[in-house]
Amino acid sequence: MEDNYIEKLIGAFMALPGVGYKTAQRYAYYILAEDGEKARRFAETIIDVRSRVKFCSVCGGYATGDKCDICSSRDSRILCVVKDAKDISTMERVKNLGCLYHVLHGTISPLENRGPEDIRIKELLGRVQDFDEIILATNPDIEGEATAMYIARLLKPFGVKVTRLAQGIAMGSDLEYADDVTLTKAIEERREM
Amino acid sequence: MEDNYIEKLIGAFMALPGVGYKTAQRYAYYILAEDGEKARRFAETIIDVRSRVKFCSVCGGYATGDKCDICSSRDSRILCVVKDAKDISTMERVKNLGCLYHVLHGTISPLENRGPEDIRIKELLGRVQDFDEIILATNPDIEGEATAMYIARLLKPFGVKVTRLAQGIAMGSDLEYADDVTLTKAIEERREM
Repeated sequence: MEDNYIEKLIGAFMALPGVGYKTAQRYAYYILAEDGEKARRFAETIIDVRSRVKFCSVCGGYATGDKCDICSSRDSRILCVVKDAKDISTMERVKNLGCLYHVLHGTISPLENRGPEDIRIKELLGRVQDFDEIILATNPDIEGEATAMYIARLLKPFGVKVTRLAQGIAMGSDLEYADDVTLTKAIEERREM
Repeated sequence: MEDNYIEKLIGAFMALPGVGYKTAQRYAYYILAEDGEKARRFAETIIDVRSRVKFCSVCGGYATGDKCDICSSRDSRILCVVKDAKDISTMERVKNLGCLYHVLHGTISPLENRGPEDIRIKELLGRVQDFDEIILATNPDIEGEATAMYIARLLKPFGVKVTRLAQGIAMGSDLEYADDVTLTKAIEERREM
């Protein structure tokens, strides 16, 4: 009996990203060794935060009310378009950008049967007139590139400046470890000094 | 506001063993991206399993009732003494051992102010007469060794056979990577072929 319950707990933890059986087992045993009140608080935090955090009606990022903190407090003529809500916190690490955001909630992916109407492109087009520049910050992978190219074409008629994150060798990394695609891109987009 | 809640969720995950900020952040974003019902089930599994799984009144291992599955179904004259309840599932990987268990729920540790009366030694002494052999399977670290030696001395008057897990080079490993203490132990306990 107890094994079934422990396996159930291990199974629950295995749903977390990058967690295999061994790691899930460690987490499960931690929960079982922890005093009951602490384990309950851990679980309740998950339920509480998950039920409070929704999506901002403007940008699609995380929000506890109708609008997120950034949309309600910031003013900018630059709009940064990202794939997921969590990408906003990554972009916020860039100092002095101070832009507003638009979350697509996915990329166009014919393989996974996701077309342009399945992500928040319509909502993006409704916001374009408020901005001077749209930065397309989707991931530099096939789907992210295709989505950026698709959006760039749609934005053309609006006459707004459309930019994309630079691609190339990562700062502080070693040429030796750059993959071929990145290296080719870095050469193609080489700049004069 | 939303940042506070996300940080709270990240903080909760950081309580799990071996989880730093980055990993906790990945887990938190997974919970936020997951549909609410699934996140709730995950949390409820933690509460449910934690409240159902208690300790067996006989061996101190995990149990859902008064006695665990092993104590209620197995008969053996060998008793394996381990530090934590989770160690039982590790020892169960040994084929054809089929022993019973006794969980100490800790080791003697003067540094952490844990004496013999703080772990389940009294309960162990009460069970000794039912067994022909007591295997002391505490960890081969300082506290585990000290605890095993202390218990071995206490068991002497009972005239029961007391054994300890063999220590030495791990099977399939490379001599080069063995630490000095293990290597010394392996030499000390070398056996004739």
